[in-house]
Amino acid sequence: MTANSAFSRLEDLGKRLEALEHAMSMLSVDEAVMMPTGGGEKRAEAMSVLAGMYHEIATAPEVGDWLAAAGGEPLDDMQQAAIREQQRVYTNMTCLSADFVRRQVNARRRSEQLWRELRAKDDWAGFLPAFEGVVAIAREEAELRAKALGLEPYDAMMEQYDPGNRSADINPVFAALKAFLKDFVPQAVAHQEEKRARRPLKPLNAPFAIEKQKTLGLAIMEALGFDFEHGRLDVSHHPFCGGVPTDVRMTTRYTTSDFLSSLMGIIHETGHGLYEQNLPKEWSHFAVGKARGMAIHESQSLFLEKQVGRSPEFWEWAMPLIAEHLGPEAIAGWELDDLLAHVHEVKTGLIRVDADEATYPLHVILRYEIEKGLIEGTIAPRDVPEEWHGRMSEYLGLPTRDNYKDGPMQDVHWPSGAFGYFPSYTLGAMTAAQLWSALERDHPDAREDMRNGRFVAINDWRREKIWSQASRYSTPELLKRATGEKLNPEYFEEHLKRRYLGEP
Amino acid sequence: MTANSAFSRLEDLGKRLEALEHAMSMLSVDEAVMMPTGGGEKRAEAMSVLAGMYHEIATAPEVGDWLAAAGGEPLDDMQQAAIREQQRVYTNMTCLSADFVRRQVNARRRSEQLWRELRAKDDWAGFLPAFEGVVAIAREEAELRAKALGLEPYDAMMEQYDPGNRSADINPVFAALKAFLKDFVPQAVAHQEEKRARRPLKPLNAPFAIEKQKTLGLAIMEALGFDFEHGRLDVSHHPFCGGVPTDVRMTTRYTTSDFLSSLMGIIHETGHGLYEQNLPKEWSHFAVGKARGMAIHESQSLFLEKQVGRSPEFWEWAMPLIAEHLGPEAIAGWELDDLLAHVHEVKTGLIRVDADEATYPLHVILRYEIEKGLIEGTIAPRDVPEEWHGRMSEYLGLPTRDNYKDGPMQDVHWPSGAFGYFPSYTLGAMTAAQLWSALERDHPDAREDMRNGRFVAINDWRREKIWSQASRYSTPELLKRATGEKLNPEYFEEHLKRRYLGEP
Repeated sequence: MTANSAFSRLEDLGKRLEALEHAMSMLSVDEAVMMPTGGGEKRAEAMSVLAGMYHEIATAPEVGDWLAAAGGEPLDDMQQAAIREQQRVYTNMTCLSADFVRRQVNARRRSEQLWRELRAKDDWAGFLPAFEGVVAIAREEAELRAKALGLEPYDAMMEQYDPGNRSADINPVFAALKAFLKDFVPQAVAHQEEKRARRPLKPLNAPFAIEKQKTLGLAIMEALGFDFEHGRLDVSHHPFCGGVPTDVRMTTRYTTSDFLSSLMGIIHETGHGLYEQNLPKEWSHFAVGKARGMAIHESQSLFLEKQVGRSPEFWEWAMPLIAEHLGPEAIAGWELDDLLAHVHEVKTGLIRVDADEATYPLHVILRYEIEKGLIEGTIAPRDVPEEWHGRMSEYLGLPTRDNYKDGPMQDVHWPSGAFGYFPSYTLGAMTAAQLWSALERDHPDAREDMRNGRFVAINDWRREKIWSQASRYSTPELLKRATGEKLNPEYFEEHLKRRYLGEP
Repeated sequence: MTANSAFSRLEDLGKRLEALEHAMSMLSVDEAVMMPTGGGEKRAEAMSVLAGMYHEIATAPEVGDWLAAAGGEPLDDMQQAAIREQQRVYTNMTCLSADFVRRQVNARRRSEQLWRELRAKDDWAGFLPAFEGVVAIAREEAELRAKALGLEPYDAMMEQYDPGNRSADINPVFAALKAFLKDFVPQAVAHQEEKRARRPLKPLNAPFAIEKQKTLGLAIMEALGFDFEHGRLDVSHHPFCGGVPTDVRMTTRYTTSDFLSSLMGIIHETGHGLYEQNLPKEWSHFAVGKARGMAIHESQSLFLEKQVGRSPEFWEWAMPLIAEHLGPEAIAGWELDDLLAHVHEVKTGLIRVDADEATYPLHVILRYEIEKGLIEGTIAPRDVPEEWHGRMSEYLGLPTRDNYKDGPMQDVHWPSGAFGYFPSYTLGAMTAAQLWSALERDHPDAREDMRNGRFVAINDWRREKIWSQASRYSTPELLKRATGEKLNPEYFEEHLKRRYLGEP
């Protein structure tokens, strides 16, 4: 590449965008971890100006020219993939007019503000007009995206989060999983009751000092492969994994009454962190060098939290660490099964974010069905509570009529205009199970490794199959290359049956 | 102002620059306080790209056109001041060509890198060629700035740090102060010896737990008026005051063997912090709304550290806080004079940053004389060690021949190309004394206030006279408006005589 090639112009552009992303990402971390409240107003102003500059630079008309010209330059495979992915991002960013984005920002702001106020009051009727506004604008957005991308409207919305995911592929997968779970959940609950009749659930021996919990969390992060030369663990109200690949900022939240909630959160976020830390550094200034999307990102955190961090083999290794860091009295007299009873609890409930891995997909499938209907116009905003109530009753046996705040008003996603995001959670959970199965096939000692706190071979496999691939392939293609087949819900179902019904 | 006026274009520009400054400022804080070492390389890359974007936006040719056009628009007094100050900044930023700045960056980088390596080895001869390079480029810079600004070369260099300061005004002030201090310092040392013969210096009863030191520091910051809704105190290797006016980030460094070094540092940085927190918020996106310059900034920190924080009245109030926060054993049996003996120690030494307020100005005047000679061509780089040795011998009685690392190689300023900065330290110290005297004239209860830990009236006066004025006036004019006269070294001399010779 010469210094004046279109490709090298795109590299320069990428470095400017990377610097702005770096700034915005670190400012967000600082806001959650360090910023005093009075700094919020100016911080929001700065973030908004930086985001505007980012958009201006990324969507400039000459960028489209460079992308077109780069296609005619002599590029190797990876460079070609970089241009393809950059073009995809450019199209997604430029398919909405500035005028539309202004209307969208207003509708979303109004709806999210009202939601924050009215959710607590359980006031659906008061919220409905703003919700209708945000759905109308989302439909319009879906049409604009669909036209630019040559996709169905709902697929065009999902394309922002998981490139290549199509509802034609997801529908049968979710249908099969739903059918499975409607029977499975009651069985798992019954199985759990039998076990508890024989072995009552032991309460945690609280309090657990926060400093001790922190050393336990750090020890487990380190064993799992988190690189503290390129990242750290802090505290924030909502745990997250942020920062940049060379400096990953994870947070947790401690409570002295329970060490498991923070610890499982740390393991989850470590999954996100490992993905970011192991992306290919030489491509960090191009879209192709970034994490693939929400479903794959969630698959990496759920791989670590659900497949690894809630497995019996993991706890064979980790139980002694609890005694070591929290003191022997923390779980005095506990056997492995006493601990597993805590991390394998199944319990139906109204709230998605509190759900366990067995019931969570039903919360997601319900939202997928409704939001798809909202975008396609087959469900009207005003009918959402009834649609919700019907599905919650059918899928989880929990009616929600007249309970809006624990029903369709519980999540920020729709009020803020994010439609097409929900499926990522469950696609991530299924992907994690499928990846674990493929890993065990390639590396039969994987469970033995966990028993001994060895994660190097497991991470090597994940680095090769997922982390180093970054955004080179679409979401479905990445999964197929890593596991040899397309998304198959059976791996997740087998995983659940093994864990919650005691099947071999 | 209409939306299309040149003035409103400059406002938009200012908001973009403010957002970039916000980002760079907070990234610097994060780098010093939070960042793991492995994050450094990408952080440096991001900072350099952001700084480049800032420079590009701030120096765009159309900005010059808008500044010229805004001069013809109907503006009120403050808006006119804003345009004047913005023009000054623009001229200072655009008077060096891009080609020159590239050569300058290279010369400075080479010289600073070599200095870091060779200072430890005391290798002046090895460093000299790079130093000659950086001095040559500084002379060239001074000529370019002088031409653009219509100033003498050295004045044009100082103009970057303290607008309006001229060596014609500073020369007699420094000459008088030097003559005073050459006699004063030996007298102060002798006076101290007499006092110590009667009252031996009591050692500090270490160790002092860091957590306790922190609560003491926070209590004193709060009493002094620091607003914790808009700022915080953290830890870093080199203490500083950074962030933005709505979110001031201060740091300190604790040692368990001595609580006073951290505490006096906290009081000093609180002085910087109060200035930033009390700048006029409505002008934060214009140069006119920022702190006036280095000498005034230093006057605000030295006002708090030297005039307030080392006064007997302050310690009458603060001594009980030491016992309260560090425990009664920390200074058991101490009287006020035992504590003052620690915060009033006078001791000649080779190192500027370790100097006390009585000897510090001599270190500065020595550097001022030499760097002025270097810029004006009357002193050659190779003669600096001999010039240094001669002055240190004369001013402080300390020869430095053949001791380069504790002589002309001790500071980063010259190796990094910063000429014209040193005078700010002592101009700040003199300004602080003059401000205190003016405050006491306007508010005779000022010392009584300190005795009672009351700082509201003192801060109200400082807010009116200095903080709220931001960059509306030049450095000398700001001082004259605040105190009724131009910089007069007698206030500082009187202050020293009262404190160190026991004069009334």
